[in-house]
Amino acid sequence: MFIELLSSHACHGGVQRFYRHESGHVGLPMRFSVFLPPADKIAEAGGRVPALVYLAGLTCTEETFAIKAGAQRLAAEAGLALIAPDTSPRGANVPGETDSWDLGVGAGFYLDATQRPWAAHYRMESYIVRDLLGLIGPECAELPIDPDRIGLFGHSMGGHGALVLALRHPGVFRSVSAFAPICAPMDCPWGRKAFTAYLGDDPLLWASHDASRLMASQSAAPHPAGIVVASQGGKADSRAPFPAGILIDQGLDDKFLAEQLHPHQFEAACAHVGQPLTLRRHAGYDHGYYFIQSFMADHIAHHARQLGAD
Amino acid sequence: MFIELLSSHACHGGVQRFYRHESGHVGLPMRFSVFLPPADKIAEAGGRVPALVYLAGLTCTEETFAIKAGAQRLAAEAGLALIAPDTSPRGANVPGETDSWDLGVGAGFYLDATQRPWAAHYRMESYIVRDLLGLIGPECAELPIDPDRIGLFGHSMGGHGALVLALRHPGVFRSVSAFAPICAPMDCPWGRKAFTAYLGDDPLLWASHDASRLMASQSAAPHPAGIVVASQGGKADSRAPFPAGILIDQGLDDKFLAEQLHPHQFEAACAHVGQPLTLRRHAGYDHGYYFIQSFMADHIAHHARQLGAD
Repeated sequence: MFIELLSSHACHGGVQRFYRHESGHVGLPMRFSVFLPPADKIAEAGGRVPALVYLAGLTCTEETFAIKAGAQRLAAEAGLALIAPDTSPRGANVPGETDSWDLGVGAGFYLDATQRPWAAHYRMESYIVRDLLGLIGPECAELPIDPDRIGLFGHSMGGHGALVLALRHPGVFRSVSAFAPICAPMDCPWGRKAFTAYLGDDPLLWASHDASRLMASQSAAPHPAGIVVASQGGKADSRAPFPAGILIDQGLDDKFLAEQLHPHQFEAACAHVGQPLTLRRHAGYDHGYYFIQSFMADHIAHHARQLGAD
Repeated sequence: MFIELLSSHACHGGVQRFYRHESGHVGLPMRFSVFLPPADKIAEAGGRVPALVYLAGLTCTEETFAIKAGAQRLAAEAGLALIAPDTSPRGANVPGETDSWDLGVGAGFYLDATQRPWAAHYRMESYIVRDLLGLIGPECAELPIDPDRIGLFGHSMGGHGALVLALRHPGVFRSVSAFAPICAPMDCPWGRKAFTAYLGDDPLLWASHDASRLMASQSAAPHPAGIVVASQGGKADSRAPFPAGILIDQGLDDKFLAEQLHPHQFEAACAHVGQPLTLRRHAGYDHGYYFIQSFMADHIAHHARQLGAD
């Protein structure tokens, strides 16, 4: 559970920190960033605040969100912590891992690779869910975060990661949202390239890492009879994995929208299983952090509401 | 007056743009960024909004402020434009200009060099005041900015630039503030190195580029008798170059504070001439953009008030 503090910066009355720790599942040191809100907000919350885990997109690092997203001011006000992991292992020395920007370093796709030579270290799903979230708890005074109130969001490849990990690990993440997520990786070049390399040639093995297929398959495994929860719109649906709704923002001037992102497929899957979804399409906005920062306040509010932070 | 649009990104209902243009004074192409608030804010202002020019610090570019400072949301709300130039000429091919991070490329110090080999292109003062601000006016529909309502601020080397250019060009900038500025460059290693290279060996020629000396010398040239303006605190002082006050924020965990920044010298100079100054020293904050973004709202409000934007 040892984590090494690399740097710490006062920020909006709280603190922006960068850490390194040994990841058992990745087998290498990993870095992540944490923003903690002001001490009075932590005290108000009884000593442990809710946290949002943010998964970044292709080529990004644990620093991207902290620098570009403009979330700290909002998290400081809402009394939320922000956690941003790196986007892949570093130093795995897999042949070819730095040859392209959409595979290997900076492109871990938040899954556990099953294929050689990736399988040894490219295990970002286990890293996030076990090693990173495993740090949070009473034994880690360094991170005064409530392990029962974790939300998940992300951008592009990290939006894919957010939707998929939230669906694959029910109960771990209590709220989910995404900016311009890769919604159907099986049907786009980025996803097919990554899944082929990391998971192998058989598309049947890909579906459990594809947000739209995962969501569509939720109807096959309804919650036990008797568990009925109210959805955001006031309707009740026992099958929705996130009964209070999922928020997705998508820019319409996003150059990756048509070929890579396919939000309509996730929208259809949500409709199919009765999952409340707010999918907002914004004229003029592109794929970058100027888009993300523009709608960050709505995402922070979405999570704060569900995590009981406001 | 031709300016080339390099990229444009919708942002907080407005737009973040990057431009390139030929600078007559620098003799090379220069880049700058502009944020424009939402169209309804521009319309409310009668078609031209006030603007803040932000001067960045050592090693930065025209992109740094746009990415890291978190100012767009606030400027969108206040109806302000934001302009950020680069920090030096690029491609001047001066021998040694990339050898160190505190001289040459990324380190123009917002002055016109008089010494060879720098004098040919390292003319950032003329660039800012003449070429860049010269773009703003009725003939440039691309930049719907009111040339009579320009504020100036900056960070570190850019804080030096903001204080010095505001004092050297009375009437051009109607409001001024700074984050962790180099307040007395004649008395710090960064300043002495830059002034020696750009201005020569004679310290007597440096004082007109040193904010503390410039401010202290204001008492020798008071405004004409009869011109009395109210200062922010309700007191009246005819001599203050910025009667409504100057705002400076400084972190106390700033590793450059003791050796390079010397805010106490600027504070003393302001007191000497009756210049209202709000100098805030913040425990725990360092020299970087996590500090800057934390107090950006106060700076935007400071300028908006004086520029009649709120």
